[in-house]
Amino acid sequence: MLGVFDSGFGGLTVLRTVRNILPTADILYLGDSARTPYGNRSRSIVTQYTQECCAALFNRGCTLIILACNTASADTLRTLQQEWLPPLRKERGDAMFNIIGVVRPLAEEAVESTKNKCIGVVGTRGTVESRTYIEELVSVLPDAKVVQQACPLLVPLVEEGWERTPEARRILRKYLLPLKAHHPDVLILGCTHYEALHPLFQAKMGKRCTVLHTPDVVARKLAMYVERHPEYNLGNTGKTVFLTTGDPERFQELGSRFYGSQIDSVERIEL
Amino acid sequence: MLGVFDSGFGGLTVLRTVRNILPTADILYLGDSARTPYGNRSRSIVTQYTQECCAALFNRGCTLIILACNTASADTLRTLQQEWLPPLRKERGDAMFNIIGVVRPLAEEAVESTKNKCIGVVGTRGTVESRTYIEELVSVLPDAKVVQQACPLLVPLVEEGWERTPEARRILRKYLLPLKAHHPDVLILGCTHYEALHPLFQAKMGKRCTVLHTPDVVARKLAMYVERHPEYNLGNTGKTVFLTTGDPERFQELGSRFYGSQIDSVERIEL
Repeated sequence: MLGVFDSGFGGLTVLRTVRNILPTADILYLGDSARTPYGNRSRSIVTQYTQECCAALFNRGCTLIILACNTASADTLRTLQQEWLPPLRKERGDAMFNIIGVVRPLAEEAVESTKNKCIGVVGTRGTVESRTYIEELVSVLPDAKVVQQACPLLVPLVEEGWERTPEARRILRKYLLPLKAHHPDVLILGCTHYEALHPLFQAKMGKRCTVLHTPDVVARKLAMYVERHPEYNLGNTGKTVFLTTGDPERFQELGSRFYGSQIDSVERIEL
Repeated sequence: MLGVFDSGFGGLTVLRTVRNILPTADILYLGDSARTPYGNRSRSIVTQYTQECCAALFNRGCTLIILACNTASADTLRTLQQEWLPPLRKERGDAMFNIIGVVRPLAEEAVESTKNKCIGVVGTRGTVESRTYIEELVSVLPDAKVVQQACPLLVPLVEEGWERTPEARRILRKYLLPLKAHHPDVLILGCTHYEALHPLFQAKMGKRCTVLHTPDVVARKLAMYVERHPEYNLGNTGKTVFLTTGDPERFQELGSRFYGSQIDSVERIEL
């Protein structure tokens, strides 16, 4: 079974494309809505929360988890992979399980796409301050120039449904002005919520800059990973189950907008 | 000792005026920064978090706690007062302690100020959906007409330091347009963060509407309460201690802005 984890609803944009590209896999989505947003929390707290959520997904039979949340990927992935997973695997008789993130696939795609080697990254304060995108990009392309911008207003803006308003255009212009001065030719939307603003990002950045579609990139790279690693048995019924730590009704209502189709049933879990 | 509780930093605007009006009281401020914002959480989760924080303040010697957080006041005060406090008092040998909120004082002040009996309320989604302001206002002034507006973008806007930008003006105009159509002559800023936007709120609402200064109203009503209830011994050294569940450094940095003067020392606590 495949686990898709996000701090809230944003990861549902990733789930949608993953669902299409892996139609037969059994998927468990967990949104930690009770504790969202992770964006302005400290690294140690994000690590603790993410670990608790991954433990819940493993306990329910997941073998592979994708951290759809950029903040969780940026802040915790390495720590969980290096410190938490090895003893856990041993404890469970060398069982196969793993956690992957969204930062690496997006960084690889950006490096494949850039010509002038200047890459822009927008995200939450947590993602930007972690400098994880800079590290990943430079590890693939050592002379890359990476310019970052934290955009804390964009998550509530998308949750308000204001993507097509003049206010959205003004806020985006203000955030992108310092970034555009460096003329990046690729922009990474390092937060799952921002996909809803993709047309506006593309319009503001202009034709010379490719604004990556995060869900498409992540789903495509995940499908390639799964093909290379058939040992993660992801099931074959094509079932999707939704879990939340928060209010199931609110999850259903707001979540359906991010998922792009009606979510019929949501289970609340305690961690 | 007096406890001042908030989900994060916003309550520091209230602490500032309380500190001035009760110069000799010993005050313990607790910001639950690790789990902020409470604004879009479910009522049961806000109640659980608030109770945990109040327990921590009572355990450290507070006798009276003010919930500076509107969401916590709106969602939880009645439950805590009616269900949690009575057995707790008994358990501790009929000890004197109590919890008060900000909704009641603001509602009283609004009713004293209104002439046309139309009162506006702005706040987080949680505060607005709880309908607590409506209930309180109507219990004091039965034929009051209350118009509410949730403004989820304003907390991150203030945390970005964008209070004086054209973006702030546009966002406020968009939020206030439906509310202004009812011509309230008093506006309650039902979220501690919004005080930073007071001049803009006043400008947008116009001269015929009084926009209440939340910290002033709350501090003044608290001083009156304390005078009527000398049995809550609030100490006499005038000491202020800052506690946070989150990152002490970030609390110091962002908190000093809300408090209006430098915060020198912050202690992190686990709940």
